[in-house]
Amino acid sequence: MVSKNQIKLVRSLHQKKYRNIHNLFVAEGIKVVRELVNSDFKVNSLYSSDSEINLGTPDVIELVTEAELKKMSALTAPNKIIGVFEIPKNQKPNFDGWVVVLDDIRDPGNLGTIIRLCDWFGVEHLVCSANTVDCYNPKTLQATMGSISRVNIGYTNLQTFLQNAPVGVFGAFMEGDVVYGTDLPKSGILVLGNEANGVSKEIEALVTQKISIPQFGKNTTESLNVATATAILLNEIKRN
Amino acid sequence: MVSKNQIKLVRSLHQKKYRNIHNLFVAEGIKVVRELVNSDFKVNSLYSSDSEINLGTPDVIELVTEAELKKMSALTAPNKIIGVFEIPKNQKPNFDGWVVVLDDIRDPGNLGTIIRLCDWFGVEHLVCSANTVDCYNPKTLQATMGSISRVNIGYTNLQTFLQNAPVGVFGAFMEGDVVYGTDLPKSGILVLGNEANGVSKEIEALVTQKISIPQFGKNTTESLNVATATAILLNEIKRN
Repeated sequence: MVSKNQIKLVRSLHQKKYRNIHNLFVAEGIKVVRELVNSDFKVNSLYSSDSEINLGTPDVIELVTEAELKKMSALTAPNKIIGVFEIPKNQKPNFDGWVVVLDDIRDPGNLGTIIRLCDWFGVEHLVCSANTVDCYNPKTLQATMGSISRVNIGYTNLQTFLQNAPVGVFGAFMEGDVVYGTDLPKSGILVLGNEANGVSKEIEALVTQKISIPQFGKNTTESLNVATATAILLNEIKRN
Repeated sequence: MVSKNQIKLVRSLHQKKYRNIHNLFVAEGIKVVRELVNSDFKVNSLYSSDSEINLGTPDVIELVTEAELKKMSALTAPNKIIGVFEIPKNQKPNFDGWVVVLDDIRDPGNLGTIIRLCDWFGVEHLVCSANTVDCYNPKTLQATMGSISRVNIGYTNLQTFLQNAPVGVFGAFMEGDVVYGTDLPKSGILVLGNEANGVSKEIEALVTQKISIPQFGKNTTESLNVATATAILLNEIKRN
């Protein structure tokens, strides 16, 4: 039987503060949980209200009531399974391919979509500024659709990281070289900025080439959403 | 002073049923409302709790209390302004450029992002199946960031529409011709399918060319999110 303390622990993990204290995060739903148990992530505990559930691994799933699951869940309509996993150690990025760098992305859905894009386009390393939203945020995890198990994500001081980068630093800007004509090498760093303010001044100073996606519609002051800009730029990098 | 009936009407417009009965929709927040009053959309009424607000048009803004605004709002933290607008008549699409067709898109955020992308890439006409989420849904409107004022959106029977189309019908599929090598003409139709099930069988039968975005990462069963796929495909169409 699940104890009150276990329920309390799982609930607390919906907050970043407690994720950092316990070095654990919680994932909900069969799809994400299955991807995670079948990956390099270390399982801490699994809870389900469905005795028939099968993850394809020998991990023990603790049976709980729907009421207990609801208490652990961040969702109003909880899924049938909740998994608690260890937060992996930061992996040092290699520069064999492209690395994506995020400068203060704040929307959990955008981060989740970007993680999913990294997975699709074979980007193994995603490096985030300390103020970027936490990738173990429940909304982010949901938006990754499990692809978080295939991308190494680290949080670091971007200035230090970029100053020491052995490859070109390409940044997405409203005004930059049109990406279609830009020579994009086999490896590099792609920097995307904050939803409202774009790339910060300190990071802009470390960008070696500004690139931009041309606007074809009526000229407005609008920009593209950061996740759709990432989609287009990763496609440009990989299509060659 | 705003009457109880006016408040009730505005509240009701958060539901599609009442939007259709009254042929009106409601937009919240200074950015979206400003874009809409400065476009071809016809204003029905405007309400604000801020007497200093300036939309740059002579439209009358009715002053209301914050409590009244909150009653009209769909948001837990309402913006300072709410606008009620007439739903425009369906415009017949022209085929001078590309037309985007959506087959049962269900997520309001995805639809909003796709409208924003159409605006960016100069796609003037977006044609949706009857079961696609309503574009005047509050979440969709928010995600469009005002670009709904620059894209003509219609709901129709897609089979009839596609059967009579005078241009090629390109559809996004997991297995199709790699888009990079595909000859994309100056005008055409791009069909995107439902988030879970893709393009339906009936519509697939009317597609003249299936196109797909290659996966570069580890081979998984994952697909791209429909809004990011739209971003990449519209970029491919326009970059030539």
